[in-house]
Amino acid sequence: MLKDFAAPEIPEGIDLSERIAEEQEKLFKNQMAIKEANLPVMVMFEGWGAAGKGSILGRVIKDIDPRFFRVTNMSKITDDDRRFPFLYRYMKVIPEGGKFAFYDSFWMEEVTNGLLKGELTPDEYRSRIRSINNAERSLMDNGYLVLKFFFQISKKEQKHRLKALDSDADTEWRVSDSDWYQNDHYDKFYDVYDRYLDDTNSGGAPWCIIDTDDKKWALLQVLSFINSGIDTALKNHGKAAPIRQNVFQLLPIEDLKDIRLDKTISDEDYRKELKKLQKKLRELHYKMYRRRIPVIIAYEGWDAAGKGGNIKRIAAALDPRGFVVEPIASPEPHEKNRHFLWRFWTRLPRSGHFTIFDRTWYGRVMVERLEGFCSENDWQRAYNEINEFEKELTDWGAVVIKFWVQIDKDTQLERFNERKANPEKQWKITDEDWRNREKWDLYEGAVNEMLKKTNTAFAPWHVLESNDKHYARIKALKIVIKACEKAIEEADKK
Amino acid sequence: MLKDFAAPEIPEGIDLSERIAEEQEKLFKNQMAIKEANLPVMVMFEGWGAAGKGSILGRVIKDIDPRFFRVTNMSKITDDDRRFPFLYRYMKVIPEGGKFAFYDSFWMEEVTNGLLKGELTPDEYRSRIRSINNAERSLMDNGYLVLKFFFQISKKEQKHRLKALDSDADTEWRVSDSDWYQNDHYDKFYDVYDRYLDDTNSGGAPWCIIDTDDKKWALLQVLSFINSGIDTALKNHGKAAPIRQNVFQLLPIEDLKDIRLDKTISDEDYRKELKKLQKKLRELHYKMYRRRIPVIIAYEGWDAAGKGGNIKRIAAALDPRGFVVEPIASPEPHEKNRHFLWRFWTRLPRSGHFTIFDRTWYGRVMVERLEGFCSENDWQRAYNEINEFEKELTDWGAVVIKFWVQIDKDTQLERFNERKANPEKQWKITDEDWRNREKWDLYEGAVNEMLKKTNTAFAPWHVLESNDKHYARIKALKIVIKACEKAIEEADKK
Repeated sequence: MLKDFAAPEIPEGIDLSERIAEEQEKLFKNQMAIKEANLPVMVMFEGWGAAGKGSILGRVIKDIDPRFFRVTNMSKITDDDRRFPFLYRYMKVIPEGGKFAFYDSFWMEEVTNGLLKGELTPDEYRSRIRSINNAERSLMDNGYLVLKFFFQISKKEQKHRLKALDSDADTEWRVSDSDWYQNDHYDKFYDVYDRYLDDTNSGGAPWCIIDTDDKKWALLQVLSFINSGIDTALKNHGKAAPIRQNVFQLLPIEDLKDIRLDKTISDEDYRKELKKLQKKLRELHYKMYRRRIPVIIAYEGWDAAGKGGNIKRIAAALDPRGFVVEPIASPEPHEKNRHFLWRFWTRLPRSGHFTIFDRTWYGRVMVERLEGFCSENDWQRAYNEINEFEKELTDWGAVVIKFWVQIDKDTQLERFNERKANPEKQWKITDEDWRNREKWDLYEGAVNEMLKKTNTAFAPWHVLESNDKHYARIKALKIVIKACEKAIEEADKK
Repeated sequence: MLKDFAAPEIPEGIDLSERIAEEQEKLFKNQMAIKEANLPVMVMFEGWGAAGKGSILGRVIKDIDPRFFRVTNMSKITDDDRRFPFLYRYMKVIPEGGKFAFYDSFWMEEVTNGLLKGELTPDEYRSRIRSINNAERSLMDNGYLVLKFFFQISKKEQKHRLKALDSDADTEWRVSDSDWYQNDHYDKFYDVYDRYLDDTNSGGAPWCIIDTDDKKWALLQVLSFINSGIDTALKNHGKAAPIRQNVFQLLPIEDLKDIRLDKTISDEDYRKELKKLQKKLRELHYKMYRRRIPVIIAYEGWDAAGKGGNIKRIAAALDPRGFVVEPIASPEPHEKNRHFLWRFWTRLPRSGHFTIFDRTWYGRVMVERLEGFCSENDWQRAYNEINEFEKELTDWGAVVIKFWVQIDKDTQLERFNERKANPEKQWKITDEDWRNREKWDLYEGAVNEMLKKTNTAFAPWHVLESNDKHYARIKALKIVIKACEKAIEEADKK
């Protein structure tokens, strides 16, 4: 893209200052329009050192109410960031609906630097590109406007500016060694930038390349691009996004009605097995920790199916400093006001840790679908978005284990009544549980569809037959153990 | 304390396993009681390396539902943590009501290590102790139960355990150089630990010293202490905490009714001054950034007083990568369910950055007080809690600037009507604004009390006379500039 780029000439007779004032006025109005429409806007500023990103950014936001935007500098990657998936630190800072987020460099810088420094293999680079393209598309499908600027500057001009900054005591601190390195290796950077821009250009989030030789002309182009982006986004806002075909290998999985629920284990075997398996898992947890392998266990299942007790038996085997259980309730306002996976991205474990989700992102295609908490288009798109999310996790190196805890309708009734009768368990049963029970058949249909559409080879579902809770607990422990053993084996092969 | 400590003997004839089972049963019930009472519980595990903190912790949580607790390891301080006040990384991880938080080391470790390594001067140590004691007291006053354990072990026994861990390939990674360093310098550590325990022992959050020679006996003591702590806390729960005397130097401040609101500035002077002052502030922002001085600007004032426009003029002068504006609305559920200052602790700027709060923690003594969103005891205690909070910020090195934006009642009415009539400004005016207006006199009383009780020498209020918004903006810029200049001067003296 960069190689084809011809900097547009300043149109003759144009009054730049006047046009800038007009666009700023328009941006000021657009700020109210995005607030009204609850549209979240992400503006990524990428490009060469000393290309003037900072000063143009300062001019762009000048007329926006500072309560409605936030500028985030993403250049620095901390050691802690490195213990999470690549997309993590970016997803963490996506804006709420109705707000602007401006980023002083975003995922482009990390990926191009990684390639230039040889930290990314060609395969890893391709994987990053896929992550970014999927993330940008998923953000857009979920109502985000994504605007991407690349600030271009010639080798000569960059050298000139760096020298000027360097020679002034007040500005020399703004020039780093890596800026000079970039100038010395301009051609190498140029090729990598060019390739990245090509690899991530899309109709939903196209690149806007800005030549920064003339600051005013550059500013005007940036403002116009933002305003026209908002205009387009407002036209699309609330409209259904296309549902994508499935691109992942799916494994066959049984319908709930075909699952045999008569599996049991004797009390004695249960006690013996539980002890043995928990000891085994404890040892594996240390091994996973030392190899920095993260584990994500997702529990879904009917009310009163025995999720809590099952989770407890896994948790009891783990070193308490190395796991967290995340109970997932309905989203709070600041969560509802972002991409629906945001509250899961921000709850991921560090490498080497376990996170057990008690209910999960699958709420989207069950309760949110059936109770109308999201649009039909939202939940229909979600199968693919969830598969992509889980692919990010396994690509990062995580073990992802998904449990569906299954009981039949009679067993649920028994347990509901038991809870009602037991003062210590009454808190576990609410009117909502009874209401959900009435919709059993609707839920069963949604669950079957979910299991089929998200039973990927990299993150398959495991059904836990839980009419006998003991049986389900032993089965869960065995599955977790097997998955850990496999991950350790693979890690040690490398 | 440590020097007076005599490890209690195991009572004769006691069946430890049976008693442990009883206490675990009780803890299981207490877990439901704290959920019921929405009581947040913090359990801090401190002590010597290899004293068995981890394994006892594992046993303690065994019977607690893992959805209701979280274990956090606080040992590692990241570079990013160091850009915030000392208490920041601790306050960030306080639990919600109804949940347990277990900490594998807490603020004790950081402070004692700091003293031992010579990173803290004696004065700084005293300041840390004050911070901790105030924080623990404020947590308790806000309904938190704080339980503190110190795990004691003799020099000989520690050496023995470290050797055993070191000689086993499966466990040697758990022994670090600093564990051996501790054993080599046991007496020095002992003195510092002894002093710290003395300095932070209080009736509200007493230390429980546990001798870990016998693991079962140690576990029983830990469980009993937690259970009796919960029993006591449940008795106190919801009761009023004592209101403390003010310990900070307060400066005199005028009543709102005595403030002259006829101050104005001509349009020409305004434009000239604004330009000049914004340029000046821009330069100062870079200087502050390079010296890593954080700035916190707090805006409070009447509806339609002109806070937004005022903030915008400050923000426009700042480098967009170095500031954030935080609009503060009513707290979301997860915020309401924690200490009322939690949502401000977590929004502090990094060193060298500015955060501008559009409404602040003073909501506690205004809207929350007048609308009954907190108890009388809560808001009466809040003056002191707020002063302590701001003292933490200024002790950290922050510049704290508090603005009260003042207008008279007639001016407010004019501006409300203007907003109603202007389609672009209608979003700024709500029914709530009209309702608040009816309570003007009540608010005025609360504001006067607030100004008087929180006008500390280290974080004084500045009244901005804003009947003429231009005048108020120029005054605000001048105050911010002066405060930055003073901070730079002081920093350069050091």
